[in-house]
Amino acid sequence: MTSINNLEATDIINKAIASGQTALSEYDAKRFLLHFGVPISRETVAHSADSAAIEAKRIGFPVVLKACGANLFHKTELGGIALNLSAAEHVRTEGERLLKIKGCEALLVQEMVIGERELVCGMTRDELFGPCVMFGLGGIFTELIEDVVFRIAPLTLDDAREMITEIRTQKITDSFRGQPAIDVDLLSKILVALGQIALQYEQVHQIDINPLKIRPDGKPAAVDALVVLKGSESDSEKHLAEPKRLVSSFSTAKEDLAPFFEPNSVAIVGASAVSGKPGHEVIRNIQANGYTGKIFLVNPKGGEILGLPVHPSIESLPERADLAIIILPAKICVQALSDCAAKGIRHVVISAGGFAEVDDSGARTQQKLIEVINEYDLRVLGPNTSGHISTPHNFTSSFFPLDKIQRGKVSYIAQTGNFATHTMKHILTAEHFGVARVIGLGNAIDINESTALEYLAEDPETDAVIIYLESFKQPERFLETARKVTRKKPIVMLKSGTTEAGKRAAVAHTASMAGEDRIVDGMLRQAGIVRIRDYTHLILAGKALSMVPLPQGNRVSFLAPSGAMLVVLTDLCIRLGLEVPALEPHSLQRIQEISPPFIRMRNPVDIWGAASTQGVEFAYREGMEAVLADSNIDAVVPVLMLTKETALPSFDFIVELAQKYPEKPIFVTFSGEKQYADECKAYLEPRGIATFPEIEQPFEVLSILARCRRFMER
Amino acid sequence: MTSINNLEATDIINKAIASGQTALSEYDAKRFLLHFGVPISRETVAHSADSAAIEAKRIGFPVVLKACGANLFHKTELGGIALNLSAAEHVRTEGERLLKIKGCEALLVQEMVIGERELVCGMTRDELFGPCVMFGLGGIFTELIEDVVFRIAPLTLDDAREMITEIRTQKITDSFRGQPAIDVDLLSKILVALGQIALQYEQVHQIDINPLKIRPDGKPAAVDALVVLKGSESDSEKHLAEPKRLVSSFSTAKEDLAPFFEPNSVAIVGASAVSGKPGHEVIRNIQANGYTGKIFLVNPKGGEILGLPVHPSIESLPERADLAIIILPAKICVQALSDCAAKGIRHVVISAGGFAEVDDSGARTQQKLIEVINEYDLRVLGPNTSGHISTPHNFTSSFFPLDKIQRGKVSYIAQTGNFATHTMKHILTAEHFGVARVIGLGNAIDINESTALEYLAEDPETDAVIIYLESFKQPERFLETARKVTRKKPIVMLKSGTTEAGKRAAVAHTASMAGEDRIVDGMLRQAGIVRIRDYTHLILAGKALSMVPLPQGNRVSFLAPSGAMLVVLTDLCIRLGLEVPALEPHSLQRIQEISPPFIRMRNPVDIWGAASTQGVEFAYREGMEAVLADSNIDAVVPVLMLTKETALPSFDFIVELAQKYPEKPIFVTFSGEKQYADECKAYLEPRGIATFPEIEQPFEVLSILARCRRFMER
Repeated sequence: MTSINNLEATDIINKAIASGQTALSEYDAKRFLLHFGVPISRETVAHSADSAAIEAKRIGFPVVLKACGANLFHKTELGGIALNLSAAEHVRTEGERLLKIKGCEALLVQEMVIGERELVCGMTRDELFGPCVMFGLGGIFTELIEDVVFRIAPLTLDDAREMITEIRTQKITDSFRGQPAIDVDLLSKILVALGQIALQYEQVHQIDINPLKIRPDGKPAAVDALVVLKGSESDSEKHLAEPKRLVSSFSTAKEDLAPFFEPNSVAIVGASAVSGKPGHEVIRNIQANGYTGKIFLVNPKGGEILGLPVHPSIESLPERADLAIIILPAKICVQALSDCAAKGIRHVVISAGGFAEVDDSGARTQQKLIEVINEYDLRVLGPNTSGHISTPHNFTSSFFPLDKIQRGKVSYIAQTGNFATHTMKHILTAEHFGVARVIGLGNAIDINESTALEYLAEDPETDAVIIYLESFKQPERFLETARKVTRKKPIVMLKSGTTEAGKRAAVAHTASMAGEDRIVDGMLRQAGIVRIRDYTHLILAGKALSMVPLPQGNRVSFLAPSGAMLVVLTDLCIRLGLEVPALEPHSLQRIQEISPPFIRMRNPVDIWGAASTQGVEFAYREGMEAVLADSNIDAVVPVLMLTKETALPSFDFIVELAQKYPEKPIFVTFSGEKQYADECKAYLEPRGIATFPEIEQPFEVLSILARCRRFMER
Repeated sequence: MTSINNLEATDIINKAIASGQTALSEYDAKRFLLHFGVPISRETVAHSADSAAIEAKRIGFPVVLKACGANLFHKTELGGIALNLSAAEHVRTEGERLLKIKGCEALLVQEMVIGERELVCGMTRDELFGPCVMFGLGGIFTELIEDVVFRIAPLTLDDAREMITEIRTQKITDSFRGQPAIDVDLLSKILVALGQIALQYEQVHQIDINPLKIRPDGKPAAVDALVVLKGSESDSEKHLAEPKRLVSSFSTAKEDLAPFFEPNSVAIVGASAVSGKPGHEVIRNIQANGYTGKIFLVNPKGGEILGLPVHPSIESLPERADLAIIILPAKICVQALSDCAAKGIRHVVISAGGFAEVDDSGARTQQKLIEVINEYDLRVLGPNTSGHISTPHNFTSSFFPLDKIQRGKVSYIAQTGNFATHTMKHILTAEHFGVARVIGLGNAIDINESTALEYLAEDPETDAVIIYLESFKQPERFLETARKVTRKKPIVMLKSGTTEAGKRAAVAHTASMAGEDRIVDGMLRQAGIVRIRDYTHLILAGKALSMVPLPQGNRVSFLAPSGAMLVVLTDLCIRLGLEVPALEPHSLQRIQEISPPFIRMRNPVDIWGAASTQGVEFAYREGMEAVLADSNIDAVVPVLMLTKETALPSFDFIVELAQKYPEKPIFVTFSGEKQYADECKAYLEPRGIATFPEIEQPFEVLSILARCRRFMER
């Protein structure tokens, strides 16, 4: 076991490729990995049974003997492994047997690594996400137990450390059956190294280390290793190009998107006089929002619409505009886009659907749009988008009737149009919060999730970002930006469409386990983005981020008028990773004071006794203040009991408490009559207090916010 | 390996106990298990290293040698196991070494069972749930992977088969790495046998079979086994008595609870003239519900309350009453209960808190109540209950102002009072559905979850049962009843308070993994009860069961006005175990007809195109009818787009469709303006159509109903 240098590592790869190998032999794979700090089992190659026996004695019994050959895979199935040989005589017998296996060119003589714990790690190249590193529970049950996590290369040491804590069976890293804890530092370095290899050696297509055994002293050792070389999986290149071709070649440069959000003039191409038509409603929306820039309308029919003159063509506009909104059928969008370019308009929203999302003909039209974008260096939002919103500039390109849109400090990036249509209506009317920027990406041929996030990263109007995405266009670029953004602005993402992709058929463990959902999961953790699964949570998280600061941590107090709710909600907190800590003595004393003496008070707070003896308002006010003042508590959830019979409280005390404790979110929910819950919501939300109709929701949202905080502070 | 009869099995146990053993030796444990059909490894006992070598030759190499002794546990840690010995000489050497281990009385010579798959099974006795059988993934990682499930003994063969399909790594039973599928029939019989042993042999305290190895032919073999004998865990008896003591001795007999639900006369002991006091509000509630029986009021002050004369004592009542409601402080409840008994009143509700739920003094008072119950053979609901409701009889004992309670066909059993107080208010005002019976168990010293369920099982007014429970009083009895009920009436249960109980420290795997939550999980599956985790889901499931029939299966169609929603909700369906199947050609054709041609329609239905070209009402009506008529579909969820600008539909068409397709649930949810969603809900729910404010909820509830259906049909 001699150390080898970088040149030698490269040499191993080059020689194998030169001789037409699709993978390194196990021996070469390990020598290669050793160079990057991956500890391996003591082993050597022997070319005869006799010399294997001599080498075995040198290594020390018991040993493992493996058939070795450049094109010998599936050793186990071929009977090409002899374990636990404890005498030279056995090594000779087994060695002779192995050498007769077809493809066996030599014998690998290996120490029999002792250790019960088997891990797995590896690297695979995803066609969209690029090289990914895997870590998990290994051994022959790897695919059965499926306890693996992924990260996108390159990994920081912190990424690697987090991976190790993320597997379900994380306890395996602690001391186990009398053996010490695993050397997590060394393990982390191995994971980082796998990512580095991926970036340094394009020729290395996949790596599997399975098992990575843990020796009795807690040190890992690669007992088996597979290094697959490029070109060995014929389909890998075929897939690679496709998604890229649908993206403008300029989208990789950081561009100024300001004209979309702060246009001094806008041209509406396809303006319509007919109420209800998109080309009409977009004008109404712009006017309703109090946009103060110039509005140019274009329609060959000419005339006047909503008090504005209509120009017959783009060419005939009196001046260039900062932004054009093209609301025309798909087929004539290409010409309109060229006309915009000719007029000097470089920023364009294309609303029409009917492109690549529909059929091949649409895809070809879309390709033509990309060609125009590339030719004239344009910035395009869409096609197939219902538009965007920029409340600080009183502007929108949405063609769905929205009236005046409330201004707020949360921005949305959405692959779907409905965040600028009926979902926006829901947000405005049901949840009482406003937005800063909304960007409907549509088919994202130019502006995509990455460019949009880069803009919002620097946008002083945006304090937090909510994202709905079905697919990434530029995941690596997105990751790079998001990593930085999430240290200052929380990002919450709903990534959908992930349950359909099943596992892939592949020789290597790492590749077979690399489902899109797992990779996205790892990437979003790496990026510091909180991933959620429910549509409703995206809206509610938006509301929370609009109305309250991020809590300092995950420590919750709640007050409920029912023992059952206290128990159920405590269960829920534990499931959600929220703590329900003990209170400080003085706050405990206070809540005990307001309660009948026979109820022994604690956190969570059983407010029934106080409410029924001292009145609902007094009980909640005093109880909430006690826990808000407690330094063990980061956020407070009152489950307000609202029934006519128990006397309805005024809700001002909640507003006052929120002002007095501005750093601690107060999330209100209800038990009792719906009418009063609705009234309370209608009173509190415009005053900046978030309420939630279902009693689980405040906790679900607090869990999201606490995760945002954790990412921000790491 | 000779077969032994039942007497021999008993003999093994008796001899071990007689000689003071706390567990059987491994050899005896296996001989014992073999009698019940558990296949074991070929093995024999040898008393010297030499005879071990001879036996090894007879069994066939390689063999395993184990130190054997009546009090020799932790063999692994003591180095008492020698694996994979392939020659007589090794057996002799190792045998001599093992015999020197302290406590080693003999050598167990065992075939080295080949097989990669390791399972675990066992039996443990829970202090509350009695004997439980465990099954899961075995080997040294059993506790790390925690992939185990439980059932309560006795198990049916179907119970056992279901257990095997429930583990996460269920694929292990299929063919694996070239080896055939596991003999699941034999495996099931082993699990059944473990339950039978528990019932047949009180002396057997715990059983562990770990690993249960799977031979290359798919047959299981117990490779190691532990049979712990009773008395070996000193704390087991201490715990056993405590919960039982708090239950009336009569509660184990099936009793007629009719006087609680159909009383012809009721005495209110502690009637109060003061509005707002429980003793006053209960009278108001009874009057408000239109109760037609006699009402007797008792208060030493006498006089008249709410138009009814007040009697000074129970004794002075003009006649006995069918039911008494005692609303007095805890301390004087014992006397009042005795007075009721003396008057011949055998059915009593005790409302007061301040008993065992508070402190030791309260527990002593509670114990006195139990003594009175036992002495006079009374039936008591409570104490510490806010009462019960029986709408078919226009009756309630709730002291929380409720007004007239809507009648329905779903009944509730709740350990908490709030289902008869503010949660009832919420149900009535927010969810627009009524109830048949509500039973607040309180401290359940007599009527408990089991007696209550037995009543509801036979109750013609109850079509479905919803249960909130924190702890079981008589789980075995409950299981026996529920198993039968769920074939006719769906039961949905929220069992809380289960996250706090950590794992127990125990020698045996089975005991260490037997957390209350896992046992409850297994028991509820066995009972055919759908377990849920969220309070909100309990209410919504109640609404759904009130308004719609159980769907025939789990096949859903939904219509939404947004591609994003279609994708997110499809993800959700897959997570929830719902299918979103392809439509039949004629229904597919119909939804294609109503849509713009460039949208390729399928299930789920993208209704945006049809709605924006043909109008919202037409699109939803035609789209819903197409999928309702489809024989691939069991339930339909329209996500109604409600905004003023897109024209609001009349909602009658939904009522008409529900009448036309009565066997298929229609669950309505919304996107758009809150005001219209509220109006739609207010219109549809009184007409029997369930609506849900959050778009995930219809699917979450359908998943609950589909599970009810599956349990009903098994």
